[in-house]
Amino acid sequence: MHLGLVGLGKMGGNMRTRMREHGVTVTGYDRNPEVSDVESLEALVAALPTDAPRVVWVMVPAGDPTRETVRALGELLGEGDLVVDGGNSRYTDDQSNAAMLAERGVGFVDCGVSGGVWGLENGYALMCGGSDADVAKVQPAFDALRPEGDSGFVHAGQQPGAGHFAKMVHNGIEYAIMQAYAEGWELLEATDLVENVTDVFDSWREGTVIRSWLLDLLVSALREDTHLDQLRGYADDSGEGRWTVEAAIDHAVPMHVIASSLFARFTSRQEDSPAMKAVAAMRNQFGGHAVHTPPPPGGDAS
Amino acid sequence: MHLGLVGLGKMGGNMRTRMREHGVTVTGYDRNPEVSDVESLEALVAALPTDAPRVVWVMVPAGDPTRETVRALGELLGEGDLVVDGGNSRYTDDQSNAAMLAERGVGFVDCGVSGGVWGLENGYALMCGGSDADVAKVQPAFDALRPEGDSGFVHAGQQPGAGHFAKMVHNGIEYAIMQAYAEGWELLEATDLVENVTDVFDSWREGTVIRSWLLDLLVSALREDTHLDQLRGYADDSGEGRWTVEAAIDHAVPMHVIASSLFARFTSRQEDSPAMKAVAAMRNQFGGHAVHTPPPPGGDAS
Repeated sequence: MHLGLVGLGKMGGNMRTRMREHGVTVTGYDRNPEVSDVESLEALVAALPTDAPRVVWVMVPAGDPTRETVRALGELLGEGDLVVDGGNSRYTDDQSNAAMLAERGVGFVDCGVSGGVWGLENGYALMCGGSDADVAKVQPAFDALRPEGDSGFVHAGQQPGAGHFAKMVHNGIEYAIMQAYAEGWELLEATDLVENVTDVFDSWREGTVIRSWLLDLLVSALREDTHLDQLRGYADDSGEGRWTVEAAIDHAVPMHVIASSLFARFTSRQEDSPAMKAVAAMRNQFGGHAVHTPPPPGGDAS
Repeated sequence: MHLGLVGLGKMGGNMRTRMREHGVTVTGYDRNPEVSDVESLEALVAALPTDAPRVVWVMVPAGDPTRETVRALGELLGEGDLVVDGGNSRYTDDQSNAAMLAERGVGFVDCGVSGGVWGLENGYALMCGGSDADVAKVQPAFDALRPEGDSGFVHAGQQPGAGHFAKMVHNGIEYAIMQAYAEGWELLEATDLVENVTDVFDSWREGTVIRSWLLDLLVSALREDTHLDQLRGYADDSGEGRWTVEAAIDHAVPMHVIASSLFARFTSRQEDSPAMKAVAAMRNQFGGHAVHTPPPPGGDAS
C-alpha cells in the first residue's frame, strides 16, 4: 500500500516511521519543510499511484485545521479515493466532513488513535468508523499501526464518527481513572500512617485489582519526583472529556465520575474560586464567619 | 516457617494452599471441621513449634469476629509471639487490637491482601504495617503469598494500621475506576453510532492509555452477557470505600470521584429515591410540573 499522510508532528511523524517499518509506503506532507517528503498537498496527491484508490490520512489538529485539510483534499481527490481523519476530531465534525467529501464521491473513515509517544514502539490502538468497503481500503495501514495481539483495533460502526466517538469515551474514562489514582495519592500523602507512598503505589503494580498502565506511569513520575514538588496542580484538557459529558447530557446518561474529573481540572486552572467567594460571603452574612481577603500585591493572603 | 492460620474461607483456604506450595508449613483452624486441620484455636497454637516466635495469621471477617479472635489469641500466645490480621479490618481497629496484644508482649502486624480468587495462581498483593522486627517474623509467609516480580508487596509503615490504610485507599481507587468504565459503557450502550460496544472495550486492552486488569475483567463479563441483561444494576460495598471517604473528611482532602462512586452504589440500592421525590415535589410546587406516582401493587408507574 502507498499512503499519503498529512501532518508529521509528534503523532504523525512517529506513525509514518511505524508504517514504513511495517511495509507501507508513505508519502508525508507537513507545512514544516524539514520533515515533509513533498512541497505541497498537491504534490502529495500527485505522488500517489492511480491504479488503486488513493488514500490520504490526515493527522492535524481538530476543528478548523482538519476541516480545511479535508476540504482541500476533496478538491484534489476523485471518485473512489478516500480520506482518513486520524486526529482528535469531535464525532459531529466527522459527519459534516464525510458529507462534504461524499459530494465528490470521495470516501471517509474516521479513526481515533491512542498510544501517544509509546505508540511508535508498542503500536497504536485504533478505533475507526465508516463503511466496510472504505475501511477495507485502509486496512493495510491499520494493520501496520496497531499493536501486536488480538486487541488494539476495532471497526466501531458503519457511520462516520463511530471511531472518534469510541475514542472520545475512552478519553472520558481516562480522565476519571487518572482522578481516582490522584485522589488516593493525595490522601496517602496527607497522612502520617503510610511512610512511603511511592512504594505503596509501586506495590500495587502486581497482583492487585487496580494494576494498569496509568498506574505504571504514575509510579514512573513519583520515582522522579516523590512528592511532585516540581509540578503545579494544574491540568489542561483537550476536549474529549467535555464532549463525553456533552454526549452524556444529550442521551441523559448519568456520568458522575467523568463529569467530576472534568470539573476538577477546571477548578485546577482557577487562580481563585468565584463560587467559593460566594460561599464565604453567605457564611459571613448569616453567621458572621471570618472571610479571607485577597493578598495585597506581593503579600500573603489574610 | 510453621504458621498458624485462622479462617479457611474463600481467601484463607486458597492462601493456605499457596503458602504450602511455596514451602511454608501451615496449620489451619476454621470453625468448619471439614476444612480445619485442628479442632480448636488452642490446638492450633499448641501445634506451633516453640523454638521460634509463634506466628498466627487471622483471616476472618472484619470487626467483631477479628477482634474476638485476636483477643483469644492474646490469651494463648506469649512474649515475642505475633498475630497478623490479614482480613479487611479498618485501620483504626488495628490500633486497638495491637494495643490489646501489646499488654501481653504479643506483637501485631496488619496486612491488606488483594487478589481475590485469582490470588492462588497469580499471588496476593500484600500491604503490611508494623515494626521492622515484627514484619521480619512474617516475611517467609509474605514471600510465599506475594506475586513473582518486584511489585506486589510493601511494608507501608511502622505503625499498626499502615497496611490496612494502604489497602483501604487501594479499594477506594478501585471503586472510582470501576465507575469510570461503567459510565463509559453506559454511554456507548445508549447511542446507535457505535454498533459493537464489547468489541470497542476489547480493543482497548492493548495500546491504549486505559488498559488495565479491571478492563480485562469487564470484557470477560461482556463476552458472557453482552448487555448485562442477566444482572440488576445493584452494587454492594464492603466498607473500604466508606472508610476512604471518611479518612478524606478527617484530613480535609477533596475526593470527588471516589465519593461519587460510593454514592452511586448507594443510589443503586434504593428501590425509590427520597431525594428525587423531594425534587419532584418542589418542581410541582413552583411550576406545576407533572409528577410520577408510585405504581399500584402489581401495576405500572404513572
